[in-house]
Amino acid sequence: MEYGSRHLEQLIRRLSRLPGIGERSAQRIALHLLHAPPEESAELAAAVRDARTKVGFCSRCGFYAEGELCYVCSDPKRRSGRLCVIEQPVDVLSLEKSGVYRGRYHVLGGVISPLDGVHPENLALDALVARLEAEDIAELVLALSGGVEGETTALYIAELLPSVRPLRLTRLARGLPVGGSLEYMDEATLQRAFEGRVEIR
Amino acid sequence: MEYGSRHLEQLIRRLSRLPGIGERSAQRIALHLLHAPPEESAELAAAVRDARTKVGFCSRCGFYAEGELCYVCSDPKRRSGRLCVIEQPVDVLSLEKSGVYRGRYHVLGGVISPLDGVHPENLALDALVARLEAEDIAELVLALSGGVEGETTALYIAELLPSVRPLRLTRLARGLPVGGSLEYMDEATLQRAFEGRVEIR
Repeated sequence: MEYGSRHLEQLIRRLSRLPGIGERSAQRIALHLLHAPPEESAELAAAVRDARTKVGFCSRCGFYAEGELCYVCSDPKRRSGRLCVIEQPVDVLSLEKSGVYRGRYHVLGGVISPLDGVHPENLALDALVARLEAEDIAELVLALSGGVEGETTALYIAELLPSVRPLRLTRLARGLPVGGSLEYMDEATLQRAFEGRVEIR
Repeated sequence: MEYGSRHLEQLIRRLSRLPGIGERSAQRIALHLLHAPPEESAELAAAVRDARTKVGFCSRCGFYAEGELCYVCSDPKRRSGRLCVIEQPVDVLSLEKSGVYRGRYHVLGGVISPLDGVHPENLALDALVARLEAEDIAELVLALSGGVEGETTALYIAELLPSVRPLRLTRLARGLPVGGSLEYMDEATLQRAFEGRVEIR
């Protein structure tokens, strides 16, 4: 009984299983909660429980939703015509924060990666084809991660499309991140940045 | 609705108030919980609630306890004779981990610091005097932090003692931490290390 309390130990153990939380941070958080007003623990406990039980996934695009549809799919002001394909719900957050895109999304749930046991049938590809057939979409923007798996998935989707109907298929540009210095770039990124170089005059 | 869900936002906001957790870590933890099996959230919520409602403080020494006395005070194998005075319950954890001391503790609840509104009457000093009168204690070891407030508190306790009965009063040594290089030590620590230098031959 290192901490002198079974319940305290339990809390520290549970906290230290969370991503990015080591045993030391877990101890710090647990002791903070123990000394804070009881409402703080009660509210945190309720928030943890509610987020898991009340938040689900949008039946159309797969993003987080509290009801049937997420706030993006239920917003009539969202431009249709373009559909942005992403790997995970969390990618919607990044794109929404950037403000660069104001259309709707489609969450695949991952990328094709046979080594990790992720095959095309494990991804929301049938649902994507169904949406292409049902919705008025002129361009499919693939915003997948830059690795081999992302490329494979992009190729797979490209193969899938002609059977649906002609539409533009694009993917995000590859190159140096803004502010990224050459010194710290990996070779593959540098190669892509070279290949994709742009005329400036 | 940045996250597309009120409950998700609530959880992220609550998590980001915990010590050492920024908004990014809070988001990472919240999304981890959302995708993890529901038991993980349920158990974490229960652990947070139970730790706050079922863990209290030992009525004798002030360390964490689930009942009246903590496991140190209720352990008959603990050596009496010495009593170690510390600032916070968490200090017991550090000393117990080090294994350097096998006696009982007394948690002051802080150090005298008028600027922060901590006066002698805010600390468990009456309880300390009462223990010195009731228990068979031959040495009081002050394991307080090294700053001015710790020194002031040590002096205050020293003044308090003669009125009780003669006993040894010691404090932890000051000096370089093991492995600490001179380059990174502050002047006060270096001064203490010099003053407390030890003959080696």
